[in-house]
Amino acid sequence: MKIGIVGGTGDIGEGMALRLSPKYDVIVGSREEVKAVATCDTCRETLQVQGMECSLMGVTNQRAVDEADIVVLAIPFKHVTPTLNTLTGFEEKIVVTPVNPIERTTYFTYAPPPEGSAAMMIKGMLPESATVCAAFNNIAANKWKMLDEELDYSVAVCCDDDGAKQKVMEVVNNVSRLRAYDAGPLAAASIVESVTPLLLNIARFNKMRDVGVKFV
Amino acid sequence: MKIGIVGGTGDIGEGMALRLSPKYDVIVGSREEVKAVATCDTCRETLQVQGMECSLMGVTNQRAVDEADIVVLAIPFKHVTPTLNTLTGFEEKIVVTPVNPIERTTYFTYAPPPEGSAAMMIKGMLPESATVCAAFNNIAANKWKMLDEELDYSVAVCCDDDGAKQKVMEVVNNVSRLRAYDAGPLAAASIVESVTPLLLNIARFNKMRDVGVKFV
Repeated sequence: MKIGIVGGTGDIGEGMALRLSPKYDVIVGSREEVKAVATCDTCRETLQVQGMECSLMGVTNQRAVDEADIVVLAIPFKHVTPTLNTLTGFEEKIVVTPVNPIERTTYFTYAPPPEGSAAMMIKGMLPESATVCAAFNNIAANKWKMLDEELDYSVAVCCDDDGAKQKVMEVVNNVSRLRAYDAGPLAAASIVESVTPLLLNIARFNKMRDVGVKFV
Repeated sequence: MKIGIVGGTGDIGEGMALRLSPKYDVIVGSREEVKAVATCDTCRETLQVQGMECSLMGVTNQRAVDEADIVVLAIPFKHVTPTLNTLTGFEEKIVVTPVNPIERTTYFTYAPPPEGSAAMMIKGMLPESATVCAAFNNIAANKWKMLDEELDYSVAVCCDDDGAKQKVMEVVNNVSRLRAYDAGPLAAASIVESVTPLLLNIARFNKMRDVGVKFV
């Protein structure tokens, strides 16, 4: 299975490339192909030091979409609309959104678009044959890249298509100690996305770092 | 410290009475005093079997408010407005809301009132000198009464007054293995309340029961 990462040179994107490329063919996308190639080189070196093999290719965001079976949108909420406006070819793809619309004042709040969630907004921007799936929303960005540490968290997955949901849950369960949970249809993604500002508040007000969540 | 439970004869209220009365003076309130007295008798017997002492008193909801330092609103969201409309005397009290506005269709959604959350709505209904604090929102109702089981969960606490917040967090930390986390001001309670429909969806779609949450 080929996993394309749009925004694959950002913090979360690079961390996802590190965690996923030992198990899947990972296609790292960037606005500038040269940056994607550089990120892949860095990831390969990091994984080699750990004695791990990987499958990585650095390309443009557009090619990452074109080549992949599953496309992960590893971009901040504010970049979603401008990025999707430059890309085509999402027909028949599974599109994974870990995107959380968050605002910060003296604390963090959930600030969804009029569609109700980033996930529903993204669904509205893509062709009907694309299947949007919310996943990986609540994992601290820093943790993705810390290969020495297990990702021991629960991951809520929302999607309207059972087949696509199962595929994404399988990917989740293949990353470190992540455990995927079916959290219902895509319309329920808002209450998954909104856990992230809660975790950021917990971290901020209790002097903690990189707080994650487990369903127990 | 005296803890009054408005709605103390409901499932969560009775469970809270069981868990809190070995450590605090608990005043169980009900619309009908006779029901509150009966609940206290049942709780006393249950705790006696476990060899535990307790301090319990069954009264009306109004007297539970009047006598308590901390008042817990252990009532469903739909009962909040009619119940608060019948009660007075909240001046200078700490009022704890574990209330979650939830709707159910084929899945559970967060359905807050125009104020943004049950917590903010409750704050608007009470006198200014009352201090509203959101806590205990994400604990499965059934678990409160299962004394054989530890409550091994995280509890997010939102409040605008640091002193009141510390008092409530201390109460939380005195119940089983609950661990309190400062989750910011009361305005941030919406993203605490909305975790509950997520946990209900996780339970429903993964054939689990009484799912709770831990911040890790």
